[in-house]
Amino acid sequence: MAKPYYRQLEEEKVFKDPVHRYIHVRDELIWELIGTKEFQRLRRIRQLGTTYVTFHGAEHTRFNHSLGVYEITRRILEVFEGRPNWEEDERLLALAAALLHDVGHGPFSHSFEKVFDTDHEEWTREIIMGDTEIHQVLARVSPEFPKAVADVIEKTYSNKLVTSIISSQIDADRMDYLQRDAYYTGVSYGHFDMERILRVMRPMEDQVVIKQSGMHAVEDYIMSRYQMYWQVYFHPVTRSAEVILSQIFKRVKALYHAGYSFTHQPVHFLSFFHGKGSLRDYLRLDEAITLYYFQVWQEEEDRILRDLCVRFLNRRLFKYVEFDPNQRMNDWPKLQELFREAELDPDYYLVIDSSSDLPYDFYRPGEEEERVPIHLILPNGKIRELSRESEVVEAISGKKRTDHKLYFPHDCLSDEGEHRRSKQQIRELLNP
Amino acid sequence: MAKPYYRQLEEEKVFKDPVHRYIHVRDELIWELIGTKEFQRLRRIRQLGTTYVTFHGAEHTRFNHSLGVYEITRRILEVFEGRPNWEEDERLLALAAALLHDVGHGPFSHSFEKVFDTDHEEWTREIIMGDTEIHQVLARVSPEFPKAVADVIEKTYSNKLVTSIISSQIDADRMDYLQRDAYYTGVSYGHFDMERILRVMRPMEDQVVIKQSGMHAVEDYIMSRYQMYWQVYFHPVTRSAEVILSQIFKRVKALYHAGYSFTHQPVHFLSFFHGKGSLRDYLRLDEAITLYYFQVWQEEEDRILRDLCVRFLNRRLFKYVEFDPNQRMNDWPKLQELFREAELDPDYYLVIDSSSDLPYDFYRPGEEEERVPIHLILPNGKIRELSRESEVVEAISGKKRTDHKLYFPHDCLSDEGEHRRSKQQIRELLNP
Amino acid sequence: MAKPYYRQLEEEKVFKDPVHRYIHVRDELIWELIGTKEFQRLRRIRQLGTTYVTFHGAEHTRFNHSLGVYEITRRILEVFEGRPNWEEDERLLALAAALLHDVGHGPFSHSFEKVFDTDHEEWTREIIMGDTEIHQVLARVSPEFPKAVADVIEKTYSNKLVTSIISSQIDADRMDYLQRDAYYTGVSYGHFDMERILRVMRPMEDQVVIKQSGMHAVEDYIMSRYQMYWQVYFHPVTRSAEVILSQIFKRVKALYHAGYSFTHQPVHFLSFFHGKGSLRDYLRLDEAITLYYFQVWQEEEDRILRDLCVRFLNRRLFKYVEFDPNQRMNDWPKLQELFREAELDPDYYLVIDSSSDLPYDFYRPGEEEERVPIHLILPNGKIRELSRESEVVEAISGKKRTDHKLYFPHDCLSDEGEHRRSKQQIRELLNP
Amino acid sequence: MAKPYYRQLEEEKVFKDPVHRYIHVRDELIWELIGTKEFQRLRRIRQLGTTYVTFHGAEHTRFNHSLGVYEITRRILEVFEGRPNWEEDERLLALAAALLHDVGHGPFSHSFEKVFDTDHEEWTREIIMGDTEIHQVLARVSPEFPKAVADVIEKTYSNKLVTSIISSQIDADRMDYLQRDAYYTGVSYGHFDMERILRVMRPMEDQVVIKQSGMHAVEDYIMSRYQMYWQVYFHPVTRSAEVILSQIFKRVKALYHAGYSFTHQPVHFLSFFHGKGSLRDYLRLDEAITLYYFQVWQEEEDRILRDLCVRFLNRRLFKYVEFDPNQRMNDWPKLQELFREAELDPDYYLVIDSSSDLPYDFYRPGEEEERVPIHLILPNGKIRELSRESEVVEAISGKKRTDHKLYFPHDCLSDEGEHRRSKQQIRELLNP
Repeated sequence: MAKPYYRQLEEEKVFKDPVHRYIHVRDELIWELIGTKEFQRLRRIRQLGTTYVTFHGAEHTRFNHSLGVYEITRRILEVFEGRPNWEEDERLLALAAALLHDVGHGPFSHSFEKVFDTDHEEWTREIIMGDTEIHQVLARVSPEFPKAVADVIEKTYSNKLVTSIISSQIDADRMDYLQRDAYYTGVSYGHFDMERILRVMRPMEDQVVIKQSGMHAVEDYIMSRYQMYWQVYFHPVTRSAEVILSQIFKRVKALYHAGYSFTHQPVHFLSFFHGKGSLRDYLRLDEAITLYYFQVWQEEEDRILRDLCVRFLNRRLFKYVEFDPNQRMNDWPKLQELFREAELDPDYYLVIDSSSDLPYDFYRPGEEEERVPIHLILPNGKIRELSRESEVVEAISGKKRTDHKLYFPHDCLSDEGEHRRSKQQIRELLNP
Repeated sequence: MAKPYYRQLEEEKVFKDPVHRYIHVRDELIWELIGTKEFQRLRRIRQLGTTYVTFHGAEHTRFNHSLGVYEITRRILEVFEGRPNWEEDERLLALAAALLHDVGHGPFSHSFEKVFDTDHEEWTREIIMGDTEIHQVLARVSPEFPKAVADVIEKTYSNKLVTSIISSQIDADRMDYLQRDAYYTGVSYGHFDMERILRVMRPMEDQVVIKQSGMHAVEDYIMSRYQMYWQVYFHPVTRSAEVILSQIFKRVKALYHAGYSFTHQPVHFLSFFHGKGSLRDYLRLDEAITLYYFQVWQEEEDRILRDLCVRFLNRRLFKYVEFDPNQRMNDWPKLQELFREAELDPDYYLVIDSSSDLPYDFYRPGEEEERVPIHLILPNGKIRELSRESEVVEAISGKKRTDHKLYFPHDCLSDEGEHRRSKQQIRELLNP
Repeated sequence: MAKPYYRQLEEEKVFKDPVHRYIHVRDELIWELIGTKEFQRLRRIRQLGTTYVTFHGAEHTRFNHSLGVYEITRRILEVFEGRPNWEEDERLLALAAALLHDVGHGPFSHSFEKVFDTDHEEWTREIIMGDTEIHQVLARVSPEFPKAVADVIEKTYSNKLVTSIISSQIDADRMDYLQRDAYYTGVSYGHFDMERILRVMRPMEDQVVIKQSGMHAVEDYIMSRYQMYWQVYFHPVTRSAEVILSQIFKRVKALYHAGYSFTHQPVHFLSFFHGKGSLRDYLRLDEAITLYYFQVWQEEEDRILRDLCVRFLNRRLFKYVEFDPNQRMNDWPKLQELFREAELDPDYYLVIDSSSDLPYDFYRPGEEEERVPIHLILPNGKIRELSRESEVVEAISGKKRTDHKLYFPHDCLSDEGEHRRSKQQIRELLNP
Repeated sequence: MAKPYYRQLEEEKVFKDPVHRYIHVRDELIWELIGTKEFQRLRRIRQLGTTYVTFHGAEHTRFNHSLGVYEITRRILEVFEGRPNWEEDERLLALAAALLHDVGHGPFSHSFEKVFDTDHEEWTREIIMGDTEIHQVLARVSPEFPKAVADVIEKTYSNKLVTSIISSQIDADRMDYLQRDAYYTGVSYGHFDMERILRVMRPMEDQVVIKQSGMHAVEDYIMSRYQMYWQVYFHPVTRSAEVILSQIFKRVKALYHAGYSFTHQPVHFLSFFHGKGSLRDYLRLDEAITLYYFQVWQEEEDRILRDLCVRFLNRRLFKYVEFDPNQRMNDWPKLQELFREAELDPDYYLVIDSSSDLPYDFYRPGEEEERVPIHLILPNGKIRELSRESEVVEAISGKKRTDHKLYFPHDCLSDEGEHRRSKQQIRELLNP
């Protein structure tokens, strides 16, 4: 196969980026991928979904992040250049996969995927393999190239080293989003010495490893991740907005199947009510479309849909209390009963949400999601799994920490109007 | 009048902010204003309109900026507290005006206002004085309070000192947006020592003045402003997106008045086609609604509307060349003629855009927009206008710098297909 | 007792500080203390001793740090103002103690104190209580005031709350030095959200506690500390310079007691050769004086002293290997023997250095140094020790981590010149 | 001549640097130069002399800065690599010259050179050409290499392009010190987008030029420089310390020539009292030595020397007033007379200090110091001098701004003790 199989731009293009200062593009392929309409669509999908209701700075999009992952990958490959185990032929593949790894995300993916039983990873593959501008650009490299890109993103590509650059416990994806999300939210976590980590990354046969001398920088990265999870990603106020969002999708789907007559037909969602929609329909979805419907549904007849949309748009969120359903098995049906008495449909107004996180996991075969662990390479050439060298990492690795919260519309439970007795009982149960 | 006429929160609320680190709210009034639906709507209107097509980081909203202006004002008032000329009674008024000064902005205000002949400053007044949640919250302070807030924002309030905190040559508004826009775009301009400037601000009878010892910090601020204008706000690529946006609004309005039959009726825009729309209609407009229409209009029959929407959403922008219409009076009609021959309607595809800026202006009575200049207070108590003390400011003040650019769809002028001769002539005229 | 018992400055003074942006002084007492010659002397004593040989940026002095601790204390007291348990009378005391807590440090304290068996904490007390400008300034507040300041620094003051602001597991001292040392070395560790920590600090009867909502910020601080210890404070290259420094002091002392005739009499050190020197002599010592002697001693007759001074000044450091004396009990005397054979006095050229650190320690009565642990205050008012709430802290607390390194002049052990056999044996023993 | 004529290190060495994050060394030559004792000596000479008395953070040394200039040069050469006009053969020469350009500086150069009529540029040449470790290392490249390095630093080297990298209006030297001095002082000026400037630098036949697209970044750099000059470098408090320093040197020299019998002989200065000292003597001088003498001279019999040393070490500075000797020609002799009456020797206690600055100068043949101006290269390949393209630069270029200040010991002029009448008259003359 002739190489390099693609052209360089006459003059390097740069994007000003607040996190990496500049993003450098020299390959025509990358430049053309960025210009496709499927990639430009990522400008209309926020990186952190509903997090902006908690951290108002978090309004950045997946377009933003995707460029960042590309740039970090580009820098990693600069370090790899000329080293053993690294094939320069894989360069363009790694860059394209980095840029496109999130291209299948839709608006508010988390809730959308749950309610409509779909998956952005499948959509990524379809966008790369289907009748899209992205596919056309990729196929110009070679007919097999699009599939190779999809395989890397899906972690089924033969050269595991390429995959591990983009998805492992310490990859370009995570290194970008931790820093980027910290920058836009303004929290002081999320900082680590990426330049140092890049300098100590080494290509091995089937994965990227880290020189032992960089262990402390990696520890710092692991701690950043841990803090970002608990301070930003799992913030209970964000989860409250997410809960309401899910209930909107759930309600509109239920209404549709119940034959409800919409004033504003959910045209863009129709195909998703009946199983997996078409690629064309999926690509038309973005946050603008979604928010358009939320706004017009504020005027629907259905009281629940209307109320949920008003809540979401005007930030009238649900309150939360700690509530472990396993420990309060008797209270749960009772609460549901009381909500019904108070004319608050518990299917929509009484929601348990659990979160969990594994700050660092080493390899445990047979688990659902096997993540590639971080390996250190010692001065003597031996390879050791990180948590065996680092007490800090060992201490927090593999510890599944789950919390359970109950979300509900506190503002409907005041000591006024009808159903005072039920409301009072609810308040007592929720504030023991 | 009893004072303080409003309640403090039991516990201070804080927002994490990337620019000011924390935004502190102690007054119940401010907290409630932030919670109104008219203020929450600012989350759906970007601060810098189309700038994100040039600087992908610039995705922050007016919600973001409004909190920032409030916070800076709060800090200025901390400095003023207890000083001569400053009435503590005006504190809440200044804070509310700072928070709400941009509340009348709509989606992509610049183009929208030009095409629909409306004005966000009028809308601000209407939102504050009309049947809104914001009005209700403000009126709880006193029946006269909403009008006072509107007057401060409109610069007609009797106490000029209060006005000058929010709108003058060096005010909370500009100090926030320079820093914020620099932060989100990632450019290295936009930094100045705000903490120092705040420390040297002093209340005088009818304006804020600056202690002479802080002059250099102010010079730095003026230079930041100058750089931000030319590097960010007037960036020609952003202006290209803005040009296309205006043409979309213009086209849809023209089609409507020509009786065109829309597949997707521009329901949300109707009332604006016939003079100034209602407040209710205006408040429903936001960027999500606007982008929804742009997306569905990609499928309209009208070739021009369709094309412009595709261009805007997928970033197929117009190119530009320097073109001063005053110096090329003969070329202009000829270009229009050639565009018509090439079947490119020059009303939509050949657009001149001029920019201008006054980095610092001192007071010149009779000018259209009289901005309050910056005054220094010398150690001996005398007041001097800044440009008389600062050579740097003197050098750049009052110099109107205008540039003219011609925008057009370069991609339609290639040496292929029909009308080759006209296209070639166009290319020659534009690339002399 | 009349209060406030001291005057405010007519106008606030500020110092520009890279870490805290500005340091604000409003109390005449603080201003006058900064102006004393004993405090100005701290400008001639570096904060991190020999660390600059590893991190060239670490050239900042204790003057720098002392102002920072004062400023953080000032901000803590702003948070405390008006809260239960906090007596405004203690304000000036806390500020003065914060400013002066390190005033007893001498040049390269660590090595100096070890060799001359002295202690900067004792000197701090003497400077505060003795015939000094600092004492005179303090005594103007009241005759008892100097002693109170000394007591706070020595942790014997009756009000433990005041003490805990300046010395506990999370105090103004550590919060300043972690940030400051990170800033000047340029490492990316050392960042934590101090502003958040200050906001959640609450005065209790005998200590400062942290609101539980700030726990994650405290975790981040603990991790910063952990990283700074291992990445900066215990850096083996710095320890190598420290080892040489100690050997210089040790050699000069030994020479003196052996009656060696110095070309350059160590005039400034004489009184320390015979037990604890006088306060006057101690105050004359600083790094300039010390480095002066190191420079002139490069020309002494004694080969060892000369060589060590050349090494220190020109950064010809010792190399190091891991070496646990407990595990290599046989090698140790053998190495000493071989060094003697190679004409390298093992007393000066073969040095074991051990480090240890307790990143976070909870209270264990009976320990030599009982540090006040960090306590959280839960929403229900209960107090809990941090490591019981935080898995991360629990994981790293109380784990004594020691490493042992052997330092020696690698450049003298080459395969050339005399004693080749001994040198070869040494090399084999050290590079097993 | 064979090339590359020098070895690469087996593994790249890095220094952690707060300003450039990392300083990368790959050439053995550079590594060895850094290790020489003449270069290590720069650790004992502060970059900004007495500035630390005003900005306590400014304690960084010339060692620090020299590494920074080397690093920026290294990055510039990365941009130049492979471009027309640039000879890779010159690479090592440029790097060595960058590293060594300040190696001839002594302690508090400004005052020292004035009093002892010497010049650090001459010393730089002597260090490079003389019997030094630096010379030995350089000569290993080739016998002609040391001279070439000295020529580049002296701007007499044949290839002007090499010279202009290190000394011109926008060179590695200035770009480092502006950023570094801003970082250590903590002022908010001194920031500019160096990464952008580096990207638009292009090698031309006899100088570095800047692509026009980078003009705004250069404007920002020029403004930074302007601000740093007036806010930091010419700060009147720093100048006060500098004035006292000069007077100490002046006094000690005068005493020596007057046959004064020193308790503490100024051994290290002797050779400088009699014309230019030897290289060996010069290299022994550093700030530690100087401060040692200042400290011991606090105990000299001579009242003036003693007082000046106390003032310098304990920061009892002179006050200043604006005083233009040209406009107050009568007051000047009168003041001197009054000082004599008040027993304050005006030669030491009444000092006029003038400062001046040319923020940006274009080429004016015949001037004493001809600085290479900044040239832009336009898209059409034409070269234009910056101030013809930039209004901002044009506005501030070539304007010589001088201020005159009179320094004197205000604390000796109080309304007490003897000579009250003279003192009162002095006060009146100085506070008109």
